[in-house]
Amino acid sequence: MFLEIAHLVIKPGEESTFEQQVAKAKPYFMAAKGCTGISLHRSVEHPEQYQLNVKWATVDNHMVDFRNSDGFQQWRALVGPHFASPPTVEHTHEITL
Amino acid sequence: MFLEIAHLVIKPGEESTFEQQVAKAKPYFMAAKGCTGISLHRSVEHPEQYQLNVKWATVDNHMVDFRNSDGFQQWRALVGPHFASPPTVEHTHEITL
Repeated sequence: MFLEIAHLVIKPGEESTFEQQVAKAKPYFMAAKGCTGISLHRSVEHPEQYQLNVKWATVDNHMVDFRNSDGFQQWRALVGPHFASPPTVEHTHEITL
Repeated sequence: MFLEIAHLVIKPGEESTFEQQVAKAKPYFMAAKGCTGISLHRSVEHPEQYQLNVKWATVDNHMVDFRNSDGFQQWRALVGPHFASPPTVEHTHEITL
């Protein structure tokens, strides 16, 4: 399992609308091949900043399958207008502790 | 519930030792007031970079109670020598989607 970590910075005053749009977009992720979960985390220290975490079976399920899907276009149409800057994205795998 | 997100950059070649040290330090977190979980995530794109996620009941449980505890000193003694640069830390709260 791989965790996509996206860092999102939202235009001032658009935070609550952005959160509603992510909720609307959630079904597109949950319907995507290899996606097993999505969560949204808002920074306490910088409340215009969010971390979106999406669980994928493989990195390609995100970068190839989802990025080329209609669901990705729907996601970007819903949230893209609220981005203050381009998102940064990385992938991680969990280390067993 | 608040999620502490710490960004850690590890000295080249010390990654597996670092991971073992985090596993050794896990009990100090789990014994801390308000801590309900810890996980470690390694970047695919930048394998010297990790994200440590710790769940706290309140931000003060981390920044006041834990930072002033013996457990924090133990944690830093175990992992500090492996940091390539000072960690950056933020706190987030989860948005219901």
